[in-house]
Amino acid sequence: MSFILTFLGKGGTGRTTIAIAAAKRFASQGKRVLFAGQDVSPALSLLWETPLSAEPQTVATGLDVVQLQTTVLLERSWEDLKQQEAQYLRTPFLKAVYGQELGVLPGMDSALILNAIREYDASDRYDVIVYDGAGDQATLRMLGMPEILSWYIRRFRQVFADSDLGKTISPFIQPVASAVLNVNWSGDVFNQPAAQQVNNILAQGTAAVADPNRVAAYLVTTGDRAAQATAKYLWGSAQQVGVTVGGVVLNQSMAIDGLQSEFDPLPIATVPTRAEGDWQTVMNALPDFTQATQVPRPIATNIAERKVALFLPGFDKKQVKLTQYGPEVTIEAGDQRRNIFLPPELSGRQVTGAKFQDGYLIISF
Amino acid sequence: MSFILTFLGKGGTGRTTIAIAAAKRFASQGKRVLFAGQDVSPALSLLWETPLSAEPQTVATGLDVVQLQTTVLLERSWEDLKQQEAQYLRTPFLKAVYGQELGVLPGMDSALILNAIREYDASDRYDVIVYDGAGDQATLRMLGMPEILSWYIRRFRQVFADSDLGKTISPFIQPVASAVLNVNWSGDVFNQPAAQQVNNILAQGTAAVADPNRVAAYLVTTGDRAAQATAKYLWGSAQQVGVTVGGVVLNQSMAIDGLQSEFDPLPIATVPTRAEGDWQTVMNALPDFTQATQVPRPIATNIAERKVALFLPGFDKKQVKLTQYGPEVTIEAGDQRRNIFLPPELSGRQVTGAKFQDGYLIISF
Repeated sequence: MSFILTFLGKGGTGRTTIAIAAAKRFASQGKRVLFAGQDVSPALSLLWETPLSAEPQTVATGLDVVQLQTTVLLERSWEDLKQQEAQYLRTPFLKAVYGQELGVLPGMDSALILNAIREYDASDRYDVIVYDGAGDQATLRMLGMPEILSWYIRRFRQVFADSDLGKTISPFIQPVASAVLNVNWSGDVFNQPAAQQVNNILAQGTAAVADPNRVAAYLVTTGDRAAQATAKYLWGSAQQVGVTVGGVVLNQSMAIDGLQSEFDPLPIATVPTRAEGDWQTVMNALPDFTQATQVPRPIATNIAERKVALFLPGFDKKQVKLTQYGPEVTIEAGDQRRNIFLPPELSGRQVTGAKFQDGYLIISF
Repeated sequence: MSFILTFLGKGGTGRTTIAIAAAKRFASQGKRVLFAGQDVSPALSLLWETPLSAEPQTVATGLDVVQLQTTVLLERSWEDLKQQEAQYLRTPFLKAVYGQELGVLPGMDSALILNAIREYDASDRYDVIVYDGAGDQATLRMLGMPEILSWYIRRFRQVFADSDLGKTISPFIQPVASAVLNVNWSGDVFNQPAAQQVNNILAQGTAAVADPNRVAAYLVTTGDRAAQATAKYLWGSAQQVGVTVGGVVLNQSMAIDGLQSEFDPLPIATVPTRAEGDWQTVMNALPDFTQATQVPRPIATNIAERKVALFLPGFDKKQVKLTQYGPEVTIEAGDQRRNIFLPPELSGRQVTGAKFQDGYLIISF
């Protein structure tokens, strides 16, 4: 298991520079580090001063760098999927399609990169993985994927089972299944080994994202007003996907005044503009990224008091919407929706009240 | 029908500033303009100096601004989908799920925003739509979606029809269909009115993206080396999704020397750093964005000579992969794959040769 670190902030604030310095510092402390960059343009190779590729390559003691290329990952995942299919289907049909001809649709980058990080994490080759992604809403969508996808499966499984469509189709499932499948079949598409494996992966992913010992994000901003507004917005938005934001890196600026109250209670580290060829100064100025455990967690449940507290800094009451349309409670903020999966003691209860206090949305049941 | 303009470039190069200035200039020329911004953080409102929302609002004569919010678009599309379902299904089952509880998965932003732009385009309310997106690979994935999704449908339709799975399922389709559907059913899931409607939308989207009178992109870079490398990479990558790149905007710099040979034959416009409160200077410095028709097109087919020429500037032979695994010819470059849909005269033929010349990949059949 690795500690996965990523950076959020407006483009041009030096996120990649900070990410590289962070990777170099962890390596200098004796950790085994993977820097995983999503930028496939030559800009990333320029910063690393070495050509990069889709396979991790060692650039210094304990420091590997990989350029996450979606076409390569897609080809690999397609082969895995074909192998799975061959296990379950009597006559596989995906085998007629080649990984080399598959185009990349929106969303595939995020899904495939998250899966690649999961595999590097599981490989036990790295103590730390520094993920240098888009650093914006797209990174948050990616990290929110395990929880949200679990929700879609949970919700539609029930809706389908209860529907006339589901009831009409179910008598046909058995004969079709016995004709095409290699395996025994329970009749419930969500209860097969393959589906359970997906559910396990999603559950592990959701747990990892929510644990600041496993996954943490840091904000990067410069002295620029728009960059600071973006950082603050991403701080609140990160809570919505359950990611802990451990602190702020104020890059290329020492003007910390006024920023502390904006980002309270996050610690702020100031980093000078990097001089060509000098990484050490930036490395020395970085905060201790393992301290993300010290800041408020995105969600805290108090079963005795029947309360759930959501940390939503930077948003006010008007920008947060709480609804209970479906079976779960939905929070909308920062152009994201989160369905709160309540512990059994609170599950199914109606919301009796909600108030906004010191950056927390406190919901009573 | 509108002219849709977007900007590609590294974060922090001032893409949004250029996009705003472009929108203001079109409006000053008497065009009806929509500025559609994807950034939902307050940074965009700061630049427009007015609070923005998910509905277009008029900020000046002939100039509307909309902030594309995925949660709002998702709710709206979900209602549309439920209405479609109610038309076709005897007892709809999606109606049990509320748009207000749906979380956002990776890829939904792009799909929903592309659909929103399509609707604004079809509304005939705007002569010009300036789309201010992420400006990177994600924007290209979005613009490539109609063509790539069409390919997936075309390819898997055939593979499914030919497969044992398809043949096993087909006898069951008729009884299930008559039990659950409201409409007559031909037996081919891809031949229903709803599926045809999707195919039409995708075909229209593909055609629009490929036509520089309808869709054009311009590169934005500063004097920074990494920003220029990114712009050049995006130039080549844009060809892979069939988008014409009309020129380069060199922002916050006058140092055009050396850049011309890098981006030949694109025109380069230099734009000075914007002074607070002054848009006019930037507006005056912008190129004429309707001239994207003057540069090489991403793909040109010569049926008589049985040749297809792909314009792939910035890539060399090593970085481009040409394969013919499936029924179509696949080009891989810039972490993208494009399946070339050949005219009937060339369709199904084997590639007999390929050479790289002056930025063009020329394939012979």
